[in-house]
Amino acid sequence: MNTAINLHAAAAALDEYWSQRTVGESNNNLFKVAKGVGSTNWHVHPTEDEVFVVLRGSLTIQLRDVDVVLSEGDLYIVPAGVEHCPTADDDVHLLLVGPSITSTAAGGKPAWSVV
Amino acid sequence: MNTAINLHAAAAALDEYWSQRTVGESNNNLFKVAKGVGSTNWHVHPTEDEVFVVLRGSLTIQLRDVDVVLSEGDLYIVPAGVEHCPTADDDVHLLLVGPSITSTAAGGKPAWSVV
Repeated sequence: MNTAINLHAAAAALDEYWSQRTVGESNNNLFKVAKGVGSTNWHVHPTEDEVFVVLRGSLTIQLRDVDVVLSEGDLYIVPAGVEHCPTADDDVHLLLVGPSITSTAAGGKPAWSVV
Repeated sequence: MNTAINLHAAAAALDEYWSQRTVGESNNNLFKVAKGVGSTNWHVHPTEDEVFVVLRGSLTIQLRDVDVVLSEGDLYIVPAGVEHCPTADDDVHLLLVGPSITSTAAGGKPAWSVV
């Protein structure tokens, strides 16, 4: 590709919550956008770290021992094997980085979010 | 870590241009912030892709056949083996992702930028 991808526009164009769309691939990692509201389900990725960057809004990543609150421009990495449950009071737009698409039921995607 | 890293603040805190600072590591990739102005040197990373995300300002990534212009929120991936020369008319803040720190002379860092 010889044009850049605007992450804000790509996230805003999504019509389903907690559903990742790949916008690029690099060094065995996918760069994905997603939007969320409400709660995902508690889940764990056994073999891959998951990188969250907040593009717009705020996100709380619940861990078993602490809640990590992210604002716009914040980056947080959930290490492989760590249980987590992302939630958002209002619409949040995200950049996510990891080796695979993880917006599955096993990856925390709530049943109601499926169009 | 149980706190998020604010990418905007991390980039603004840098005191040297075209010098990457690692803010996180995930799935064999480093997440780095940098700020730039003026031109780097033409260079190539033979074995690793390089991901650019513009946090603030704008960046032109010169390729041999085209210039790719990035604005705030834009993502662009320079594939391994592709010659490139990033430039910025005004201060630009960047998130960079790749397996290693590439802000070296071989990685395009101009000599004047060394403090």
